[in-house]
Amino acid sequence: MFIKNTWYVAGFEKEFGESFISRRILDLPLVLYRTSDGRYVAMDDCCPHRLLPLSKGKRVGDEMQCGYHGMCFSADGECTHVPGQTNIPSAARVATYPIEARHGFVWIWMGEADLADSALIPDVHWHNSPEWKSSQGYHHIEANYTLLNDNLLDLSHETYVHSRTIGNDEEESIAAYAAKTTVEHDCLVRAHREMPNIEAPPFFALVIGRPCRINRWQSAIHLVPSINLTVVGVHPVEEERADARIGHVLHLLTPESPGSTHYFWAFVRNYRLDDEELTEGIRKASAATFDEDKQILECQQKQMERLNSKVPQVAIKLDEAPIRARRLLEQRLEHEARNPRHVMAPPPLVPQHSFAILEEV
Amino acid sequence: MFIKNTWYVAGFEKEFGESFISRRILDLPLVLYRTSDGRYVAMDDCCPHRLLPLSKGKRVGDEMQCGYHGMCFSADGECTHVPGQTNIPSAARVATYPIEARHGFVWIWMGEADLADSALIPDVHWHNSPEWKSSQGYHHIEANYTLLNDNLLDLSHETYVHSRTIGNDEEESIAAYAAKTTVEHDCLVRAHREMPNIEAPPFFALVIGRPCRINRWQSAIHLVPSINLTVVGVHPVEEERADARIGHVLHLLTPESPGSTHYFWAFVRNYRLDDEELTEGIRKASAATFDEDKQILECQQKQMERLNSKVPQVAIKLDEAPIRARRLLEQRLEHEARNPRHVMAPPPLVPQHSFAILEEV
Amino acid sequence: MFIKNTWYVAGFEKEFGESFISRRILDLPLVLYRTSDGRYVAMDDCCPHRLLPLSKGKRVGDEMQCGYHGMCFSADGECTHVPGQTNIPSAARVATYPIEARHGFVWIWMGEADLADSALIPDVHWHNSPEWKSSQGYHHIEANYTLLNDNLLDLSHETYVHSRTIGNDEEESIAAYAAKTTVEHDCLVRAHREMPNIEAPPFFALVIGRPCRINRWQSAIHLVPSINLTVVGVHPVEEERADARIGHVLHLLTPESPGSTHYFWAFVRNYRLDDEELTEGIRKASAATFDEDKQILECQQKQMERLNSKVPQVAIKLDEAPIRARRLLEQRLEHEARNPRHVMAPPPLVPQHSFAILEEV
Repeated sequence: MFIKNTWYVAGFEKEFGESFISRRILDLPLVLYRTSDGRYVAMDDCCPHRLLPLSKGKRVGDEMQCGYHGMCFSADGECTHVPGQTNIPSAARVATYPIEARHGFVWIWMGEADLADSALIPDVHWHNSPEWKSSQGYHHIEANYTLLNDNLLDLSHETYVHSRTIGNDEEESIAAYAAKTTVEHDCLVRAHREMPNIEAPPFFALVIGRPCRINRWQSAIHLVPSINLTVVGVHPVEEERADARIGHVLHLLTPESPGSTHYFWAFVRNYRLDDEELTEGIRKASAATFDEDKQILECQQKQMERLNSKVPQVAIKLDEAPIRARRLLEQRLEHEARNPRHVMAPPPLVPQHSFAILEEV
Repeated sequence: MFIKNTWYVAGFEKEFGESFISRRILDLPLVLYRTSDGRYVAMDDCCPHRLLPLSKGKRVGDEMQCGYHGMCFSADGECTHVPGQTNIPSAARVATYPIEARHGFVWIWMGEADLADSALIPDVHWHNSPEWKSSQGYHHIEANYTLLNDNLLDLSHETYVHSRTIGNDEEESIAAYAAKTTVEHDCLVRAHREMPNIEAPPFFALVIGRPCRINRWQSAIHLVPSINLTVVGVHPVEEERADARIGHVLHLLTPESPGSTHYFWAFVRNYRLDDEELTEGIRKASAATFDEDKQILECQQKQMERLNSKVPQVAIKLDEAPIRARRLLEQRLEHEARNPRHVMAPPPLVPQHSFAILEEV
Repeated sequence: MFIKNTWYVAGFEKEFGESFISRRILDLPLVLYRTSDGRYVAMDDCCPHRLLPLSKGKRVGDEMQCGYHGMCFSADGECTHVPGQTNIPSAARVATYPIEARHGFVWIWMGEADLADSALIPDVHWHNSPEWKSSQGYHHIEANYTLLNDNLLDLSHETYVHSRTIGNDEEESIAAYAAKTTVEHDCLVRAHREMPNIEAPPFFALVIGRPCRINRWQSAIHLVPSINLTVVGVHPVEEERADARIGHVLHLLTPESPGSTHYFWAFVRNYRLDDEELTEGIRKASAATFDEDKQILECQQKQMERLNSKVPQVAIKLDEAPIRARRLLEQRLEHEARNPRHVMAPPPLVPQHSFAILEEV
């Protein structure tokens, strides 16, 4: 149920300090850290001697020392020391995984190690580019990652789930504006929607600095299996489109287990870059918005577990993009099941810059 | 394990206001409400689109609106609105169940809908009759409903479980007074017991207004599958039986799941009708009594789950009424399994009024 | 997975007063008490009538009265009273188990009752001998008892798990001192280690009364299936071995369930017998030490459940004693499976007194 030959976000770069991180990814408990010479490390969180998680021990220099009997493991997963003896049993090692930093995130590859080409890391350069400013955070979601993909590809839910933040209660619901859905390269889905002359929901009133009527557009972009980007543009109706406030919202999902997901997010903007109050305001508003999604998604996950997916679900027009994404995921899962060395190169999420999308439509 | 073609209590009438109730009945999660024109509604608590419980959304007028994508469902379970499109998929509906108010309770029928004849609702008119006064409440019990039936049909447990309320510790235990058990119409069990000249347990001292010796009698009445009535009569030994304080205690059980039960109860009395302090005193004392049963029953349920019912149980004389009731239940379960349209008309719980029983014995 | 024909500790003698104890042993819930004439009782904690645990009722004299319907059971497990009837059904009895007090502990035999010879109780007389002084306690450990055996037979973990109490962080780790392992009578394992001229860890500085360099030795002694004794000796390097402070640390393990263990422990010393402050100091330090083990063991148990024991574990030299003990346990389990009347007589844990071991080495 997980694509293995792909790069997932293991954490933010800034999380990696002198200690280590214990995190489960694709249902495998891992220890993650950065060595003193800047190399990233991901290893199984399990001592091969008595199975104690290495995260219950401590980091000693650039090695992990088990907290029970003191066996030590290097950044390569090799055992370097067994108390009470000088020879090291050949089986005394832990598995490691390719891992590296890019764009302010640390990426991990859980599939065949020799296929881990860093050129395959999705381009999300806005996150740490000097021309953009990022407000970021993390949510732990007790739901399968595909439910988050569904959520992010059909933004009509904003009217109902986010009426206090990025949606609103007025008669023009987001669903009333048809989305145009396109599929590219068998692994990317875009759903674009224009919403001219609507009342600014609370979040956008914050961004603009006052309540007003706005022209708004949004592109939900999905790269199989779990990279999502929402491009949002707004400007007051009396201003020019060329002066729009553009946000690139990254939703980088990493399956923790079949029923839970690490949700690394960043709202990256191209305006008022030095306004730290706005950076913090966007962070808080985004966190509040994703809290609302978390409630819905965790409730949906419990319901699906209870019903054991036996209940047929009714499809509606709004499901077009989510259904296309699910089909691409199923295709890719089948490819990888048939060929464990199957790899796909990710196309750019945004062709040139985000305006390109706007002109197309 | 549940009889379906029968009326269960879904709630007290007074619970139904402008909002809605989310309640699981016979292991099915339901949304319950009363429309603005007084019609009662019970529907599956599950949106057919993405399976989110409708109770996570909101009531809009007399419809339920899903909290995820805004689909709306009428009191008939029909979808009335799908955001983003005008046609309604034919599969977009939720199941509804016959439901109606009677005697201050709201009753639901989970079996074949066309068999739901309101004449089959058990007569518990005392609950909202002007000649009686009710003190009522609700307990959530983490035990199968048949364990509650057992409990209510053998009142000898009062000596041990309720020594602080309706039992007492004196040498004459309730078990010392033999109960006479009768079965009627293949669906009703009565167990009657007379206890002349005993010390009034705390609850009855409250009812009479002082400690004293009393004549006491009790009839445990059970209607398959889960309607129970305890008729209790007491008077000081120096007074006449005709002036006895009579209580009709309703124990209306609705299975929530195989391991839990909704327990709607009401202590209804024929004396001091305007004494509000007594009404509240009886409510508190009854709640405390049922708290004691809850502890025992939940402990017994855990034990039975642990032992997986493999341990043979020893039967004693006191089990006569509970065993007869269990046999009637098994019979009726078999009938309904063979014929899903099997229905039984409930006989009156009390032939004329509660004194009739007393004369008989 | 449990040896049945052996004596396990059911509790400390001092726990047995006028009430009763509810405790699960070898996955069986039991009621334990001492009658007014000093006889010990162990019976199933389950009324045969409605299966309610007898521990939810009360002790009446030397009998247990069920808290639901008042049935009473004598110290022999026979039903003595059924409310509402005079004859006692022959099936109305609960199982009892051989149980008796020795050395300040109360011992129970869960196997074939006629084999329960009190001569088979392990000799741990130091616990209540006038020549020794005991500091004792109890830990509930959510781990299988064999993980505790492993822990107690390889004391090298002190360096890593107990660096704040009986281990220390200095370069000489305990593992650096080789242990000599011997097996006796197919049921006893000893692992002895001498550690001359080391810095006293905090616990031993407390015992000696000051920081200093010490000669230290330790014998880990294990009697299948779950009796453990650690003999620890220390003296300042400038003093004589004959004047050493000797501690006999009893670790008497009783399986509660496959995943949890009752851990009755006592640190018994041969010095400063009247120093009550030291007795309490040792009790606190021991409890803190076993708290550290508890954390590791419970973490290991969860990991093993998660991995379902499918992961091969790497063996190292330090595992010699634990592996020998596990083999003896497997042998004995096989013997008992083939012959349910198989019994083994326990040899003395310490040949004469603890110095004997020291001379040998």
